[in-house]
Amino acid sequence: MIPFNKPYLTGKEMHYIYDAVQSGKLSGNGKYTKKCQHFFETKYGFGKCLLTSSCTDALEMTALLMNIQPGDEVILPSYTFVSTANAFELRGASLVFCVSRNDHPGIDEEKIEALITSKTKAIVVVHYAGVACDMDKVMRIAHSHGVFVVEDAAQAIDSYYYSTDKGQQLPLGSIGNFATFSFHETKNIISGEGGMLVVNDERFYDRAEIIWEKGTNRSAFFKGEVDKYCWVDIGSSFLPSEVTAAFLWAQLEHIQEIQKRRLYLWNKYADQLDVHSSLALQPIIPIYSTNNAHIYYLVVSDLTLRDKLIRYLKDNNILSVFHYIGLEKSTYFASKYVGASLKECDKYSSKLVRLPLYYELEDEQLDYIVSKVNHFFDNIN
Amino acid sequence: MIPFNKPYLTGKEMHYIYDAVQSGKLSGNGKYTKKCQHFFETKYGFGKCLLTSSCTDALEMTALLMNIQPGDEVILPSYTFVSTANAFELRGASLVFCVSRNDHPGIDEEKIEALITSKTKAIVVVHYAGVACDMDKVMRIAHSHGVFVVEDAAQAIDSYYYSTDKGQQLPLGSIGNFATFSFHETKNIISGEGGMLVVNDERFYDRAEIIWEKGTNRSAFFKGEVDKYCWVDIGSSFLPSEVTAAFLWAQLEHIQEIQKRRLYLWNKYADQLDVHSSLALQPIIPIYSTNNAHIYYLVVSDLTLRDKLIRYLKDNNILSVFHYIGLEKSTYFASKYVGASLKECDKYSSKLVRLPLYYELEDEQLDYIVSKVNHFFDNIN
Repeated sequence: MIPFNKPYLTGKEMHYIYDAVQSGKLSGNGKYTKKCQHFFETKYGFGKCLLTSSCTDALEMTALLMNIQPGDEVILPSYTFVSTANAFELRGASLVFCVSRNDHPGIDEEKIEALITSKTKAIVVVHYAGVACDMDKVMRIAHSHGVFVVEDAAQAIDSYYYSTDKGQQLPLGSIGNFATFSFHETKNIISGEGGMLVVNDERFYDRAEIIWEKGTNRSAFFKGEVDKYCWVDIGSSFLPSEVTAAFLWAQLEHIQEIQKRRLYLWNKYADQLDVHSSLALQPIIPIYSTNNAHIYYLVVSDLTLRDKLIRYLKDNNILSVFHYIGLEKSTYFASKYVGASLKECDKYSSKLVRLPLYYELEDEQLDYIVSKVNHFFDNIN
Repeated sequence: MIPFNKPYLTGKEMHYIYDAVQSGKLSGNGKYTKKCQHFFETKYGFGKCLLTSSCTDALEMTALLMNIQPGDEVILPSYTFVSTANAFELRGASLVFCVSRNDHPGIDEEKIEALITSKTKAIVVVHYAGVACDMDKVMRIAHSHGVFVVEDAAQAIDSYYYSTDKGQQLPLGSIGNFATFSFHETKNIISGEGGMLVVNDERFYDRAEIIWEKGTNRSAFFKGEVDKYCWVDIGSSFLPSEVTAAFLWAQLEHIQEIQKRRLYLWNKYADQLDVHSSLALQPIIPIYSTNNAHIYYLVVSDLTLRDKLIRYLKDNNILSVFHYIGLEKSTYFASKYVGASLKECDKYSSKLVRLPLYYELEDEQLDYIVSKVNHFFDNIN
């Protein structure tokens, strides 16, 4: 069976974990945590980076930092992972779901402004499949209405947006007030579970560190800035152990090689899949976005055909999977939802299918998958 | 320098992490998570066990499960780690701090009932240093007032309470509606950061699993109980990766040997330290509690002498550390606090000192520490 995803080792994971144990520091915020954070701050020019136990945790930190309260509205895509919503729901926010683009599962930037009210506190965008949202548009709306922007960059490591407004290419995660990343096993760079908060807005540097360290000024204490550390704010234990950080560091050392391989595989899918667009659409990468090869997906013409394809591939020992159900239709939220019908999101819920894509996927395996997908569509009548 | 604490490997940590990678599952709720949870459920007869990223996370889960809302009161010790409070503060609870016992840093069970009001939702007790609170008293109060009991058993792995009411010895963590454990690097059994929620109250089994899995019914989906999984409740990403769980499993396999060694070291301190009780008190283990040898501490006669001892030991290459500052005096809470002065807590804040105690502490090192402590007190004049 070719799995949809497969975690991998780059080689030095165990060595670095062993080193962390030997150094006498295995809880959070040690040597490997700092190495990983420094990597992101220097390679991508992010503001303050803080590793977290998950991207969910990082999203929750943004909600605490923005002081989200009952009554505050947060605009976010409907077609996203549950944590994008839960992080704000936990603080009592009113969730305002936005539709996806017609040509891509990302949030429809043109539909955001109409959702803004005097209660809007933040716009959360998700760079689906590592493909950039049109951030110039998003940032212009945010600035003109004085609201925060959170980039949910869970899938968007090492991807870039070309900003016309700034005349330069910007790494995803460097644009909003905050950004959040995931190192879940299905991501390009992994630590099993894991995530990171990026704070680009300097006003929040100190408080972010406090919230991360269980609401204490422990970080300031270890930097010698205060005499004793104590409880100074709300917070949680958002930081991962050095076991996790050491594992992550071994992966980050190989990011270029990993990205290169994934991109090669992605392009091979794009080149070799030969399906008429009336049956299935292949992913598009807008001109302002790079491709980090996080997901290769097809948008099949209808639900029945999509489910038939998944079954056919499974019968041929290939695991392909669908993705999100629109959050406004979920058991939890359906009865609360008062907005318009989000048809574009339904399209991706019912028609999108993701093909296997991981670092160790072999060329022969990919060729086999391509041949089966092509065969499936060739034989539709 | 003899550190206060030192993480250690039992031997198979890397092997199990490697195995988790090979098995193709590195995110949470895989083989090693299940092995660890099963271990606790069978060895200690706990209800449903769910590994978490930290004990903090487990405490937050209890707050969500008990539906803690603004206006609800939660009784907890003042002399405890910040997370015992933050978990409930995050949900808007009113925190009602209780004083410590005169003979021990644990909550004074006799002072709990006077703090109960019609708004009290839960009593949170902390088994400080792994020493049991007098749970018969606590459970009787809770039952007569219809409030929940959470055992913060962060330090209390493999420790027991003799219940006169039940006529039997009960593992700590098996008594309250909920219990929470920590596997932070300073604990007896470690995974760097890490924790576990125990749900003894069966009414909460299903919801606990949902909240743990980001508010989704993913667990039910994988058990084949529902067709699709979706957002059904609030929740977070509380589950640790299989990297963490595999590490923990290697430790749990050696729990008996670890506990034996720690108890040997603890008893050696108790036997060999020779300090007059007017200068420093040694820990007491109440008759109803076993000793899991989590902490060896002294309660020195005053703050000046305590700080002098810490400095003296540091000058002799021994790291000893104080512990909590009463939470009602913290920067965050002081202005909100309306209760009585908690003098017994102040006593432990200013006079308690913890001596090095870890699995790999050598006999000669302990002998050296003992000789220095004895020497220090012999030369007080």
